[in-house]
Amino acid sequence: MPTLNWRWRPDRTTIQPMRILGIDPGLARVGYGVIDTTGGVQTMLDCGIIRTDAGRSEGERMVEIAGDLRQLIRQWRPELAAVEKFFFYRSSNTISVVQARGVVIMTLARFGIPIVEFPPMQIKLAVAGFGHAQKDEVLEAVMRELSLTEPPRPDDAADALAVALTGWFQR
Amino acid sequence: MPTLNWRWRPDRTTIQPMRILGIDPGLARVGYGVIDTTGGVQTMLDCGIIRTDAGRSEGERMVEIAGDLRQLIRQWRPELAAVEKFFFYRSSNTISVVQARGVVIMTLARFGIPIVEFPPMQIKLAVAGFGHAQKDEVLEAVMRELSLTEPPRPDDAADALAVALTGWFQR
Repeated sequence: MPTLNWRWRPDRTTIQPMRILGIDPGLARVGYGVIDTTGGVQTMLDCGIIRTDAGRSEGERMVEIAGDLRQLIRQWRPELAAVEKFFFYRSSNTISVVQARGVVIMTLARFGIPIVEFPPMQIKLAVAGFGHAQKDEVLEAVMRELSLTEPPRPDDAADALAVALTGWFQR
Repeated sequence: MPTLNWRWRPDRTTIQPMRILGIDPGLARVGYGVIDTTGGVQTMLDCGIIRTDAGRSEGERMVEIAGDLRQLIRQWRPELAAVEKFFFYRSSNTISVVQARGVVIMTLARFGIPIVEFPPMQIKLAVAGFGHAQKDEVLEAVMRELSLTEPPRPDDAADALAVALTGWFQR
């Protein structure tokens, strides 16, 4: 039976390859990471952030997010999207962040991409092995899983890769 | 100085006519109401709800909302959109509702429509004259302002007309 320290791992030799887009949603910055899982090895294809113009209205910033995300989807054609899930936060900009997340989910759905969603603790558990892992422990795990020699930057991009890996491990 | 019982009213004789789309956001139902303010008199052009299919995923339901809203915008070409604003609610489906609201705001912004946002209390204050007005008092005020002989149905459509009227009174 799974416990908090238990990590499910697919049998990497028998599973079909898959391209996964991980998303760490936000209004100012949306982190994204694209991984391929060909041949039982996970490879990073791309990662980065969609940064929106702070001088524009909330609506215009969400238009930017939708447009850039459509471009990413057309470029990488992911077969699965993994998106970080929110519960109630206390931050003052939560409403904006959740609204922007809606635009992300809608845009993915428009392309017919299956979506899986994971709360932060589940991402830490899946990637670093325990739900209370620190940021640098998650980062190390992401680097190890993707055989990266440099840490992915910025943080939101690394987080998005962690979500993508979770989508793979938990599928 | 304005007080809680004070209502600002534009000088109706000197103000340019305007078409306003009011929106009461949601995931299961999005209320909408279109008013014209030609010649100092407010007229209802359309009202109703976008109802989404409960059997579909959240993403697909938001795709429906965006599509139907685009159709409404193309049909009525509003010059202003007024959207009900959320704060933190305790309802379990708040995240879904706020996400759907993001899709509404983004869709309006994509058409370059200016957006004004009002919290529920401000809508009640603007339409019924006091912020703690009951639902039927708001409904009566909406009927009076739009010279309707029948109450607009369903509730979400009536609420959307109240938001549209607030957009007009408070512009």
